[in-house]
Amino acid sequence: MTQPYSTLLLDLTPPFAQITLNRPTQRNAMNFQMVEDLIAAFAALRERSDIRAAVLSGADGNFCAGGDIADLQAAGTLSDDEQNAQTARLDAMLRAVNQSPQVVVAKVDGAALGGGFGLVCVSDIAIASTTASMGMPEVRLGLVPAVIAPYVVQRIGFTRARILMLTGARFDGVSAHEYGIVQEVCPSEILDDCAHAILNELRHASPSALAACKQLLFETAGKPLADTVTYRADLLNRLRRSADGQEGLNAFLQKRPPAWAKE
Amino acid sequence: MTQPYSTLLLDLTPPFAQITLNRPTQRNAMNFQMVEDLIAAFAALRERSDIRAAVLSGADGNFCAGGDIADLQAAGTLSDDEQNAQTARLDAMLRAVNQSPQVVVAKVDGAALGGGFGLVCVSDIAIASTTASMGMPEVRLGLVPAVIAPYVVQRIGFTRARILMLTGARFDGVSAHEYGIVQEVCPSEILDDCAHAILNELRHASPSALAACKQLLFETAGKPLADTVTYRADLLNRLRRSADGQEGLNAFLQKRPPAWAKE
Amino acid sequence: MTQPYSTLLLDLTPPFAQITLNRPTQRNAMNFQMVEDLIAAFAALRERSDIRAAVLSGADGNFCAGGDIADLQAAGTLSDDEQNAQTARLDAMLRAVNQSPQVVVAKVDGAALGGGFGLVCVSDIAIASTTASMGMPEVRLGLVPAVIAPYVVQRIGFTRARILMLTGARFDGVSAHEYGIVQEVCPSEILDDCAHAILNELRHASPSALAACKQLLFETAGKPLADTVTYRADLLNRLRRSADGQEGLNAFLQKRPPAWAKE
Repeated sequence: MTQPYSTLLLDLTPPFAQITLNRPTQRNAMNFQMVEDLIAAFAALRERSDIRAAVLSGADGNFCAGGDIADLQAAGTLSDDEQNAQTARLDAMLRAVNQSPQVVVAKVDGAALGGGFGLVCVSDIAIASTTASMGMPEVRLGLVPAVIAPYVVQRIGFTRARILMLTGARFDGVSAHEYGIVQEVCPSEILDDCAHAILNELRHASPSALAACKQLLFETAGKPLADTVTYRADLLNRLRRSADGQEGLNAFLQKRPPAWAKE
Repeated sequence: MTQPYSTLLLDLTPPFAQITLNRPTQRNAMNFQMVEDLIAAFAALRERSDIRAAVLSGADGNFCAGGDIADLQAAGTLSDDEQNAQTARLDAMLRAVNQSPQVVVAKVDGAALGGGFGLVCVSDIAIASTTASMGMPEVRLGLVPAVIAPYVVQRIGFTRARILMLTGARFDGVSAHEYGIVQEVCPSEILDDCAHAILNELRHASPSALAACKQLLFETAGKPLADTVTYRADLLNRLRRSADGQEGLNAFLQKRPPAWAKE
Repeated sequence: MTQPYSTLLLDLTPPFAQITLNRPTQRNAMNFQMVEDLIAAFAALRERSDIRAAVLSGADGNFCAGGDIADLQAAGTLSDDEQNAQTARLDAMLRAVNQSPQVVVAKVDGAALGGGFGLVCVSDIAIASTTASMGMPEVRLGLVPAVIAPYVVQRIGFTRARILMLTGARFDGVSAHEYGIVQEVCPSEILDDCAHAILNELRHASPSALAACKQLLFETAGKPLADTVTYRADLLNRLRRSADGQEGLNAFLQKRPPAWAKE
């Protein structure tokens, strides 16, 4: 297949996409180009209703070792406006992954640090090898994880986020599971099997329902209940009348799998 | 005792109420009538300051198997406005249980799915048998758990809610405990003993203080701290001067149990 | 050293402060004076950029046994306005500890009840002995934990806060760890060693970055993402150009520890 992005490998064979961070000689460190490539890749995914989930991983034994040092040094010569624009792009990338209509499965082996850790936190489901190495080392570099902070809080809550941000400590996949960052942890050798098992579970789910469910989560998050009743009622009506809603009900009554489960 | 509701069994002997979902041949599936009956029952409970806790359970080995299929099919023939009105009633029911002045203890055996799972999430304390079967299967039916979603997020946080909603997977009582959905898990045979032990603990608590504590929780949730200081100060003043507040302080100083603990 | 506060012992030797609640004959119960002393001590700490963390503990085997009974009785004779003013001071104290530029480590042995439990919940990192005794007994006294409630919810989430507030149950350090209240639990004899280990980890972190990280956490909490992008970008720019940000980057490139790690 052709590869439109210099920092990513893509496989868009329905019903699942594979997105691989691909700067292995830099341990897949996140440079400005990778941020742009991820924004473009997830924009393309938004149009692909035939793809219901995307596996996000890193090439050659690391997920993503954090910000690219050469780019960080270069950033020092930029104006405030230029730096703010770059920060806004990183934020936009995290938001695009977080709110992708596809279910995003992060598969974490090796290092997932700084911005790479942020990427893990905006996945729907994350799995890690026991020997993965995660953390937010920013305070040890005289910095703070300013861009990813809200996404970390959203994933693991204020208390755990606060502790991990303030200590800057590294932790392995087993601790990441205990902290609620990843939902499965296993030896590196069977990480692919674990990802496949999750994808197979998702075959039971209607692709349009998954996209609607992601929208529901982000549309209602942090809003007072009363403000979302109409939205929730309308969404439910729309789905009941949709092709998948009708097929789902009929399949249930006929005690057969729905059409989408056969793909 | 007389039973005013066709879908529920009620026992309102103070200081504890028992509310039993009672459509056992349909595994206590939630139909429109049950929603109305629960709204009425919890409205009646609001007036009963002599009742400090309510145990919510299901008849004959299931909690509640989800939405009633006959009603779901019938809903397809309703207008948008009629469907929205029904969705709003389901939301109102969940809110009424959530904010009941009584402590609501959900006792979960067997199935607790869809709307039944939502009921578990709006209890104050939930206990389950190890073999209970919970989940939100909506995406496997081409739908989304639109009504219960905010209550699920409130109970278990955004990350776990997101995963359970997107996979549609079923899980047992042991996993429900791990996920923070239920607070105790035990063999089905001793589920009643477990509920009794919780009720006995609640005998130490002042009924009016419990009602005030529920109000405090929902009045302050999601609001900036500065916006609630006056409310919190006023509430504390009111309770200090209340009969129970005075009795509590005196009982403490006299090293004796307060009057309410003897009921 | 001189001790400016009647209810506290202070040691302000950089880079770490020790603050000890010191009313041991009252099990360090929190009276009005202690609230004022804590506000003053944490106001003084705000000016001390040479101190990067503060250990908060109690003298003689207890952390803090809750509100002082003599003061609680006296409060009954105050006007509404006077009581509200006192409640506001307690709230201000909790906020000052919560948002201290220093990392606050709560070291909990013995009792941590009511307001003392609130103090644990506003620390950044809490550690407890296995035999610590924590809880919010207010409902058993005919009251509610009105002042500390939002801080408890912030620390452990709505569901666990709700349960602990409504049952009024006491629990030990092991349960406190399970509930996410404390992050480490150990035998009482090695509690000091555990605190030292955490402080040693914090030696790797830049003091100004720690203060900025605390600010980041509270400035972005509960706000929509889009509202904080500019704040986060500006903060990151400021830190990159700061002395510590420059030193951190250089130390990283030169594969040496940064200057602040040698203190």
